[in-house]
Amino acid sequence: MSDTTTADPITADPHLHEDGSLSRLTIDTIRTLSMDAVQKANSGHPGTPMALAPVGYTLWSQFLRYDPSTPDWPNRDRFVLSVGHASMLLYSLIHLAGIEEIDAEGHKTGNEAVSLTDIEQFRQLNSKTPGHPEYRHTTGVETTTGPLGQGCGNSVGMAIAERWLAARYNKDEFALFDHDVYALCGDGDMMEGVSAEAASLAGHLKLSNLCWIYDSNHISIEGGTDLAFDEDTGLRFAAYGWNVIHIDDANDTAALAKAIETFQATDDRPTFIVVHSVIGYGSPKAGSEKAHGEPLGEENIRITKRAYGWPEDKSFYVPDGVAAHFHDAIADRGGALRDEWEANFAKYKTAHPDLGTELDLMLADKLPDGWDADIPVFPADPKGLASRDSGGKVLNAIVGKVPWLIGGSADLAPSTKTDIKGAASFEPTNYGGTNFHFGVREHGMGAVVNGMALSHLKSYGSTFFVFLDYMRPPVRLSAIMELGAVWVFTHDSIGVGEDGPTHQPIEQLAIMRSTPGIDTFRPGDANEVAYAWRAAMENSGTPTALVLSRQALPTLDRDKYASAEGVLKGGYVLADSDGTPDVILIATGSEVSLAVEAHEKLAADGVKSRVVSLPSWHRYELQSDAYKESVLPKAVSARLAIEMAGELGWDRYVGLQGKTITMSTYGASAPLAKLADKFGFTVDNVFATATSMLENK
Amino acid sequence: MSDTTTADPITADPHLHEDGSLSRLTIDTIRTLSMDAVQKANSGHPGTPMALAPVGYTLWSQFLRYDPSTPDWPNRDRFVLSVGHASMLLYSLIHLAGIEEIDAEGHKTGNEAVSLTDIEQFRQLNSKTPGHPEYRHTTGVETTTGPLGQGCGNSVGMAIAERWLAARYNKDEFALFDHDVYALCGDGDMMEGVSAEAASLAGHLKLSNLCWIYDSNHISIEGGTDLAFDEDTGLRFAAYGWNVIHIDDANDTAALAKAIETFQATDDRPTFIVVHSVIGYGSPKAGSEKAHGEPLGEENIRITKRAYGWPEDKSFYVPDGVAAHFHDAIADRGGALRDEWEANFAKYKTAHPDLGTELDLMLADKLPDGWDADIPVFPADPKGLASRDSGGKVLNAIVGKVPWLIGGSADLAPSTKTDIKGAASFEPTNYGGTNFHFGVREHGMGAVVNGMALSHLKSYGSTFFVFLDYMRPPVRLSAIMELGAVWVFTHDSIGVGEDGPTHQPIEQLAIMRSTPGIDTFRPGDANEVAYAWRAAMENSGTPTALVLSRQALPTLDRDKYASAEGVLKGGYVLADSDGTPDVILIATGSEVSLAVEAHEKLAADGVKSRVVSLPSWHRYELQSDAYKESVLPKAVSARLAIEMAGELGWDRYVGLQGKTITMSTYGASAPLAKLADKFGFTVDNVFATATSMLENK
Repeated sequence: MSDTTTADPITADPHLHEDGSLSRLTIDTIRTLSMDAVQKANSGHPGTPMALAPVGYTLWSQFLRYDPSTPDWPNRDRFVLSVGHASMLLYSLIHLAGIEEIDAEGHKTGNEAVSLTDIEQFRQLNSKTPGHPEYRHTTGVETTTGPLGQGCGNSVGMAIAERWLAARYNKDEFALFDHDVYALCGDGDMMEGVSAEAASLAGHLKLSNLCWIYDSNHISIEGGTDLAFDEDTGLRFAAYGWNVIHIDDANDTAALAKAIETFQATDDRPTFIVVHSVIGYGSPKAGSEKAHGEPLGEENIRITKRAYGWPEDKSFYVPDGVAAHFHDAIADRGGALRDEWEANFAKYKTAHPDLGTELDLMLADKLPDGWDADIPVFPADPKGLASRDSGGKVLNAIVGKVPWLIGGSADLAPSTKTDIKGAASFEPTNYGGTNFHFGVREHGMGAVVNGMALSHLKSYGSTFFVFLDYMRPPVRLSAIMELGAVWVFTHDSIGVGEDGPTHQPIEQLAIMRSTPGIDTFRPGDANEVAYAWRAAMENSGTPTALVLSRQALPTLDRDKYASAEGVLKGGYVLADSDGTPDVILIATGSEVSLAVEAHEKLAADGVKSRVVSLPSWHRYELQSDAYKESVLPKAVSARLAIEMAGELGWDRYVGLQGKTITMSTYGASAPLAKLADKFGFTVDNVFATATSMLENK
Repeated sequence: MSDTTTADPITADPHLHEDGSLSRLTIDTIRTLSMDAVQKANSGHPGTPMALAPVGYTLWSQFLRYDPSTPDWPNRDRFVLSVGHASMLLYSLIHLAGIEEIDAEGHKTGNEAVSLTDIEQFRQLNSKTPGHPEYRHTTGVETTTGPLGQGCGNSVGMAIAERWLAARYNKDEFALFDHDVYALCGDGDMMEGVSAEAASLAGHLKLSNLCWIYDSNHISIEGGTDLAFDEDTGLRFAAYGWNVIHIDDANDTAALAKAIETFQATDDRPTFIVVHSVIGYGSPKAGSEKAHGEPLGEENIRITKRAYGWPEDKSFYVPDGVAAHFHDAIADRGGALRDEWEANFAKYKTAHPDLGTELDLMLADKLPDGWDADIPVFPADPKGLASRDSGGKVLNAIVGKVPWLIGGSADLAPSTKTDIKGAASFEPTNYGGTNFHFGVREHGMGAVVNGMALSHLKSYGSTFFVFLDYMRPPVRLSAIMELGAVWVFTHDSIGVGEDGPTHQPIEQLAIMRSTPGIDTFRPGDANEVAYAWRAAMENSGTPTALVLSRQALPTLDRDKYASAEGVLKGGYVLADSDGTPDVILIATGSEVSLAVEAHEKLAADGVKSRVVSLPSWHRYELQSDAYKESVLPKAVSARLAIEMAGELGWDRYVGLQGKTITMSTYGASAPLAKLADKFGFTVDNVFATATSMLENK
């Protein structure tokens, strides 16, 4: 092919032969870096970075309030790449902006966040440039994206966080928080229900600091979006209460700039900018699904570079002046703003020392001294209370000391007991409220709570445990991102009773336990709940799940039995006989008191038994072998686990000689007492099963 | 309170003192049965049945084409109660319509599907009236609902099924399939993303046989919907391409009838009827969230009955003539249509014997003789092929014999390999197509595939295994409902490689294994895939999950090793040494060939080892103790499990003395070879670990 074939549809495109300006060069640098990195890795997604390079360029260079030297500046604008597969777009922007790397403690390492070498190592082991952007792994990445729709949801959480921070901390002359949140979304994001849930919530909340830029390229993996997706997305967002702006051509940077200006001037609702783009822009695969998820091929890259007016033999080429041009545009604006903010914040600390201290703690993911002073100790009480109720009491006791512990429920607060008493709701008319109404949107709630946590709020979301299934992706991402989010799951077993099998979790405990990096507690009584909440508060880099009962649980007599502090070790000996036990009963949650009752009955029968409460397998597995041996001595093989959930995983603790009283089927609709009888969760059955193991010995 | 207080807002409502006609009496019977049942059970949801009784009454008595004597008539209209918590509405309708009970084989039991006694046993153990409607449990319940949004999605699948059945089986004078699908949805349904996904798909597919009736009562559990949900839902559905109709008052049965007539006359898109209702209509709690999920209380029930002009001392009262009126209205219309259909189908079988036989088989959930004749046997091949590829080949080999095996992918067909070669797409212009494009909507796909299975199609849906997380609720429901759906999950491990941790399943195998009633296979080579697909086809009352690799797997030499038929037992001895093995290697999927390689290396080193392939734990656990002992003899405690997934559950097979090579963290972004090395999935590591266990003995 000759470069004189001007009739070629690529080279005939006027956008490809613009002014040769630095702006044009920068945009094409983003494109070519993306093409080259994917080609070298021999895998990845070149088409979207090529299409959206003008969008990224315009937004970052003209609008984003960001200081590349201080990527953790709390009031920076957030840029979320919800189309995480287009990671090379983000890596190119981070590289060209000259973002400086910081480590986990916020200290500069002296390295670039993403160097050109890193880009050449795209998708390689231990590189800074994994296939999808990973929070904590690469400085400048605001959230881990890739599973579609999650970044959209996170961005709503970030926008909520900004509104709340502004409401709480901004004072008269001190506008500490006034940043915006931008998310770049694609057709896949728009098809996923989680983004629909988050968008409806954002519209309701009138989050005018939120701007989604929707890359409408009419291409999906199977072919044109007309195969499955021809709704009027703009109209849908209007129905959600968003301001909707259409841009016909992603290359029209002037129109894009105008749209972002409109966003910034809109103060009563979020903004949705629909940008029509051509995937794989400028390449022979332009406008085709073949430009989406595979390298263009060496020859196509040559043709494309030629079309861009680019030196076709150069790979990973950044023309002189490009990086400086892009960096300066961002750093001049962002640096000045950040300087001003720092000075302002220093004054703020003098004017409002308490709030200043609070902010410092919050931003460092730390807790104030005495944060736990009001956590109640629950007196022994055979009637007791549901762990959802004790959970609510403990939560209410903590928020007074940790005001940034905020969250809510997916329309189940009266049942999950997570409302903060006397506190206002977070609503468009009161962004200082702390009770969040996420609506019947578990998935959206999960993504939003993650977004709030990414802004250093100690955020929580609650629903029934069985509805974990509706929000698995954000729960998993909270673990991958090592966020301190707290998931409150109530109605944790067949204890749900009459609502029946669809509402009775069976496998959800195994699901949580199988998920790496999350601390899941199923506490056995109110005092175990208190320790579980302590652990949740102290888990700053690990999400916590609190799995709580609907039904009342006796509050155990801790003078008679061991302290609930053992919860912090994940498992502990709660009740014991003298000497080596004949049998060990292991239980969690509502079955702990059942095990204790059986223990007493066994003792009366002359059988020596031990009760081990094992609320967090995650924590227990982190203990020393010596500790574990002291709790579950190898010499005792008669072990019985009792849990109103599926059996999977219990073999580890009961061994091949052990038994379990667990659920091997789904539950049923009936009052709990009937179900307990039907499925064997009775003192008599525990006693009989335990003694049968002794007879077999 | 006196019944002469005519100024009371309840008694002043003209709808409460209408004509005393049978229609009015029937509506109030539905209301009072619902109130009484919830009160007696002391739990449940009275408010929505009270609000929607006029809707249920009008739809069933005037429109639903349904024969109460033949509730499994294939061409019946479907009524889906997506608001499953309002189960008493459905039970009242079933009871008053006089639906006759049929058993699992379709035979009449001679009982009413729901008797008045059953209604008095609402939410009690073993009753026909569980808290939420359960498919297979109660005749007349078309799908299990309760988890919100699922019924909406199912209804789309049912409407798709009707379109496909009509396209394939209707011939000239034989309109065998022309039924409609109605779903009754609430605010919660509308907030859930799954319904948004399904609605967008339904609009795209122009399913004019689908009608959603949306009960807009402005109440959610936490309070008014204005706490979290004030979008313009009607406008949103217009954006999806639906016909939208508003009805101001749920009591306006004439307006409702007109709306349903409009639906029936609309032939180019689905219909969305927004009905404004008052929750707990007629009661002192009317219009309040307090009418949603708890009994009204004895005194409130008295007041309400008084307001209805009802005998306030009577409970579970069905006035004379009400049941006959309602039953006759439905049975006269539906019975005639069903009679006509039966006669028509008899003629059809003469005119189109092959299609008639096909339909008989399909409706009986049976397979034709020789259905498996074209399943290939894959020759030994060290290079082999990915199990997603062999899965695609086997699927393509079956569809020729089982034309109602239809499904598709959530926009990943080129990767999941589930496209049927040479087949058309199911699109609005061709409802006879068999390749389904569900869009990037895993959750919607799951609910739709369930809906298709509920109409006896052997339906499948495919995506990447990690995105199981996006569709957990319908996967669970497929198991609860005992559907024969097939879930094809590819990219099943860190074998995903460069896409990184967000795309690499770790815990998803444990999630599937912990879910009761689902047959999950992770086959080790192409011939194991073929047997797994055989099992999936024969699993008519159990869903199947096929967990398949992205990367190529060697096709094992079945002359040298055992037949892959052992897959049907869930686990089998694949390779063995003479005599009792020193060590047993247990593996699934891509790690089976790794285990075989290690076995050969161990043999060369004089170590006797056995390789057990364990593709389905579900099936293996159903085998006899003797069989299990023959595969995993208790005497051999040196056991090593190898699986590119989390460890949870493996203790059952390796025991406390065993070891595993599994994933204890999330994966990483890199080419698979690097990851295999990093995480220990190499022959050398398997060999070293296995021999270390022997040294320890």
